[in-house]
Amino acid sequence: MSANPENFLNKTAQINHSSVEALPNSRKIFVQGSRKDIQVAMREVSLTDTPLENGEFEKNPPITIYDTSGPYTDPNAEIDIRKGLDELRRTWVEERNDTDLLTGFSSEYVNQRAKDPSLDHLRFSHIRQPRRAKTGMNVTQMHYAKNGIITPEMEYIAIRENMRLEHLSENTSATQQHPGQSFGARIPEKITPEFVRDEVALGRAIIPANINHTELEPMVIGRNFLVKINGNLGNSAVSSSIEEEVDKMTWGIRWGSDNIMDLSTGKNIHETREWIIRNSPVPIGTVPIYQALEKVNGKAENLNWQIFKDTLIEQAEQGVDYFTIHAGVLLRYIPLTANRVTGIVSRGGSIMAKWCLAHHTENFLYTHFEDICEIMKAYDVSFSLGDGLRPGSIADANDKAQFGELETLGELTKIAWKHDVQTMIEGPGHVPMHMIKENMDKQLEVCDGAPFYTLGPLTTDIAPGYDHITSGIGAAMIGWYGTAMLCYVTPKEHLGLPDRDDVKQGIITYKIAAHAADLAKGHPGAQIRDNALSKARFEFRWEDQFNLGLDPERARAYHDATLPKDAHKVAHFCSMCGPNFCSMKITQDVRKYAATQGMLHVDDAFKKGMSEKAIEFKNQGSEIYKNL
Amino acid sequence: MSANPENFLNKTAQINHSSVEALPNSRKIFVQGSRKDIQVAMREVSLTDTPLENGEFEKNPPITIYDTSGPYTDPNAEIDIRKGLDELRRTWVEERNDTDLLTGFSSEYVNQRAKDPSLDHLRFSHIRQPRRAKTGMNVTQMHYAKNGIITPEMEYIAIRENMRLEHLSENTSATQQHPGQSFGARIPEKITPEFVRDEVALGRAIIPANINHTELEPMVIGRNFLVKINGNLGNSAVSSSIEEEVDKMTWGIRWGSDNIMDLSTGKNIHETREWIIRNSPVPIGTVPIYQALEKVNGKAENLNWQIFKDTLIEQAEQGVDYFTIHAGVLLRYIPLTANRVTGIVSRGGSIMAKWCLAHHTENFLYTHFEDICEIMKAYDVSFSLGDGLRPGSIADANDKAQFGELETLGELTKIAWKHDVQTMIEGPGHVPMHMIKENMDKQLEVCDGAPFYTLGPLTTDIAPGYDHITSGIGAAMIGWYGTAMLCYVTPKEHLGLPDRDDVKQGIITYKIAAHAADLAKGHPGAQIRDNALSKARFEFRWEDQFNLGLDPERARAYHDATLPKDAHKVAHFCSMCGPNFCSMKITQDVRKYAATQGMLHVDDAFKKGMSEKAIEFKNQGSEIYKNL
Repeated sequence: MSANPENFLNKTAQINHSSVEALPNSRKIFVQGSRKDIQVAMREVSLTDTPLENGEFEKNPPITIYDTSGPYTDPNAEIDIRKGLDELRRTWVEERNDTDLLTGFSSEYVNQRAKDPSLDHLRFSHIRQPRRAKTGMNVTQMHYAKNGIITPEMEYIAIRENMRLEHLSENTSATQQHPGQSFGARIPEKITPEFVRDEVALGRAIIPANINHTELEPMVIGRNFLVKINGNLGNSAVSSSIEEEVDKMTWGIRWGSDNIMDLSTGKNIHETREWIIRNSPVPIGTVPIYQALEKVNGKAENLNWQIFKDTLIEQAEQGVDYFTIHAGVLLRYIPLTANRVTGIVSRGGSIMAKWCLAHHTENFLYTHFEDICEIMKAYDVSFSLGDGLRPGSIADANDKAQFGELETLGELTKIAWKHDVQTMIEGPGHVPMHMIKENMDKQLEVCDGAPFYTLGPLTTDIAPGYDHITSGIGAAMIGWYGTAMLCYVTPKEHLGLPDRDDVKQGIITYKIAAHAADLAKGHPGAQIRDNALSKARFEFRWEDQFNLGLDPERARAYHDATLPKDAHKVAHFCSMCGPNFCSMKITQDVRKYAATQGMLHVDDAFKKGMSEKAIEFKNQGSEIYKNL
Repeated sequence: MSANPENFLNKTAQINHSSVEALPNSRKIFVQGSRKDIQVAMREVSLTDTPLENGEFEKNPPITIYDTSGPYTDPNAEIDIRKGLDELRRTWVEERNDTDLLTGFSSEYVNQRAKDPSLDHLRFSHIRQPRRAKTGMNVTQMHYAKNGIITPEMEYIAIRENMRLEHLSENTSATQQHPGQSFGARIPEKITPEFVRDEVALGRAIIPANINHTELEPMVIGRNFLVKINGNLGNSAVSSSIEEEVDKMTWGIRWGSDNIMDLSTGKNIHETREWIIRNSPVPIGTVPIYQALEKVNGKAENLNWQIFKDTLIEQAEQGVDYFTIHAGVLLRYIPLTANRVTGIVSRGGSIMAKWCLAHHTENFLYTHFEDICEIMKAYDVSFSLGDGLRPGSIADANDKAQFGELETLGELTKIAWKHDVQTMIEGPGHVPMHMIKENMDKQLEVCDGAPFYTLGPLTTDIAPGYDHITSGIGAAMIGWYGTAMLCYVTPKEHLGLPDRDDVKQGIITYKIAAHAADLAKGHPGAQIRDNALSKARFEFRWEDQFNLGLDPERARAYHDATLPKDAHKVAHFCSMCGPNFCSMKITQDVRKYAATQGMLHVDDAFKKGMSEKAIEFKNQGSEIYKNL
């Protein structure tokens, strides 16, 4: 770490500046829930009117978009990342009266580190007192759900998932959409708080929401909701720094990352994480074994339950919302990887494999699984059961090692549920298209419908530098088949650490995959944005087309590269074809003609015959291009 | 056109220079066919050896890659784009003795234009005399195939499609691959010339190979062969120039475009096309109606059969290999588009719709279809039956207009086949994932198995600037379902004209889609490249990983961005995790351990138990990282 306090503050100031701007023509709106402090943030994109032939204008209603960016894109929000975000959930957690505010941290490691003055300049200066469940209490959303309780978190999520659909359907005729093919998922027309509760109670959805992450805007992961995406960040021994990681978080959620995993493996993991969580409106996940390994100087065989347990408590009291735990890497599965083309490619899986071989003892994450559950339920940390034996190449897809581990994850799911600990299951990896569905089907079967959370999968190995695309294909497909959250892959996968632009590329690619999956599943309202954007495109409302897209900046820049003049933003031709040759313009004429002649209804056209109309059209002058 | 002769030659010299280099560690090889002049070009990538524990080395056999780049990547080839490529097929065409070498061009337009001295500086200076079938002769590959003849083109293709599989399987243990799911396609273990002939005879495959495009390296489009891709280029009234278009062609085939469509709509289309065809080793397709429209100054209603016919002959005698003909846009389908969100988005479809409305006469491409067939079979131009009513938005997918037109294309396929004219069918467009397969199934049904050639489809409308990705998802899926050729989409789709980098992005994305489809179909040998690349990755043979990828340049650049030192190219850790924390390294240790202990066979491991091994491993020192 070369950072000094001055540098750090300067850099964070820059982070704020670049992320605090609202996206173009967008404003932050808040939908009021049943109580004053349930105010669900969304993004509303205003559209321009469509000029009509009669000189009047057709209003195009604003479009509401699910918004992951938190207060950063709200011009009215005061952001100071040295203080952290407002504590939206604090009252909700307090009111439940099932937690104690601790006077200090329970982790030995944290207390040692707090005494080290050499870390002062890295330390977040407004550390909050941690909470823990009162003795004997279970504070998970699943526990509340099973007891019939609708939490404010659940209501927030119900409102959020609906994206003001009722409002939109009153205002636009373009809400109709294709019925989807949901492969057994059941997505209601309107999400209610009761539905959220029931899905969580059944284990089909999770609400990652640590009681110590009070800054969180609640969200849900489950196949009967919108498909979510996860972006990774993390420093490593080779490069990267705290500043960059905080910056990547705000940057990632700006473009649509629903969750962030902090996969740091280098120095100062603890301090980096504090900065990230205090400033994150989205759930933060980690892989605690990474930090545990750092505590034993990288020697996997020196890991033990005590160190790991202390790490879980350390992170739980900071507010990490879900832990990847590689408890399915069992001794008997390890030799199954020896003949693979790419062996074990999961870092956590490799660490545990090495530990198991060194000690010839069963994986301590497996043997201590119920102990881990006890910690999880005291803070409401969710499990993300890691697939340490996922295939790292097409050749290794769907093999015995992978599916053996998956069966163990199914067994562990049942144990976690016994403790009312929320659980999702991680999935591959590298899988050719025809073998993707088998993964989803098997996961649903052996994990009893717990949410699936997959990395890609990559559908070929031959495109290093483009693995956001090789995996985006697989991600869209497995999302359609029922995966609840897609872990992004950046163009740098297999090659290097992603920079800011790589993160954006990965996020946008995965928003595409998730949205394509929502469309294919027939998620209510998913198609509204497509319809609005296509209507804008067809009507040459260039600005609206840009603003409704996932990346307005790039759309505008690409357009301007060919037709840089502002005048063309309302031009009645596209840049591809030029002013005399535009298919959309011609089609508008076809439609206008059909309308004039009372032929907008298909059947009429067949009945009427068209001969005399053709003559009229010709007489009116069928050349209707405008030279601009 | 602002070009002058000096500029043009200077620029083309640059084009040669940038495209003539072989890809890294690659050499051009030629596989000898049954006659001396059948020499099938392929790319062979050499790999480094794998160091073994005993100090010896494992040889990694070179990998043969299907090569579309033609002589440009052959350092031994002399390239002069002012003269054009060598005429590989000339003898083959001549020997058939069913064509006449004409003394001049048959098109009035060509002859007029030849007299215009203001075009001298644009004109290709080594124009070749055109050929045409002798009266009453049919010179299509389908005609030969139906008569049981195996042409040199068919033999060339059989050798090309096999990619030296027999050779590889002798040399590598990594040829094993997953069985695919082919949805009824039947792909033999080894492609024979007889198989090529039979597929062409049945209409299930086409060999686009105009007798006047003798520079062509023959290739096949059919669902029982490797999935192919098409890249578009074309100047327009707004921007672009001849030099750029020729450059884009050589650039596109360098990265893997199997075909190129010249979609020019601006000035000097004729001269541009001559430069492209004379220098193209891949088939060139066009949409003749674009040029016909230019000839009537952009007024669709002034189009007529005579002008169109002259344009077909003009282009056929230049050597265009396939024509997109929008003969399925029938009068009765046009009103079906009036209520669409995006009406008619195909340029050709719009032109014909406008013409039909203006004249209230049935589409002249439809009424003159048999006349068109007569021209096609005199030069062996293949049909690409255009989908003028393809959906331009998710909302319009699979509607009555689209499927009505598809049924007419099925009817026209049968007419084309009656004339032994090779035929493929164009497909959409914008289609959500769950509606893609219906397109493929319906096309196979109504077009009796003629090859499908689709644009994407785009699986969502909401990502302008990323439509190579929205469409790459759909392309991979429809390729798996049986589409024979995928028309690429660049990141500039809907926004502007693609530049050099956009073309590359589009090509690579579509190579990914096509290859993912080949893997999913279980195409013999498709997985060899994946396996070789993954083995290189796992063994830290960075250079081999880069060189086996679709874009070695980008892979290397991305790696160097994190770890710029050359030493790291053989480093035993990846840039993501650093020297002390590499899952692949750990796995190698697991494997080494398993091998040492005789546990490479899975069953042994279970039988033996592992306790004493664990102790040995610990005693040997289980910390085996190397500090580099």
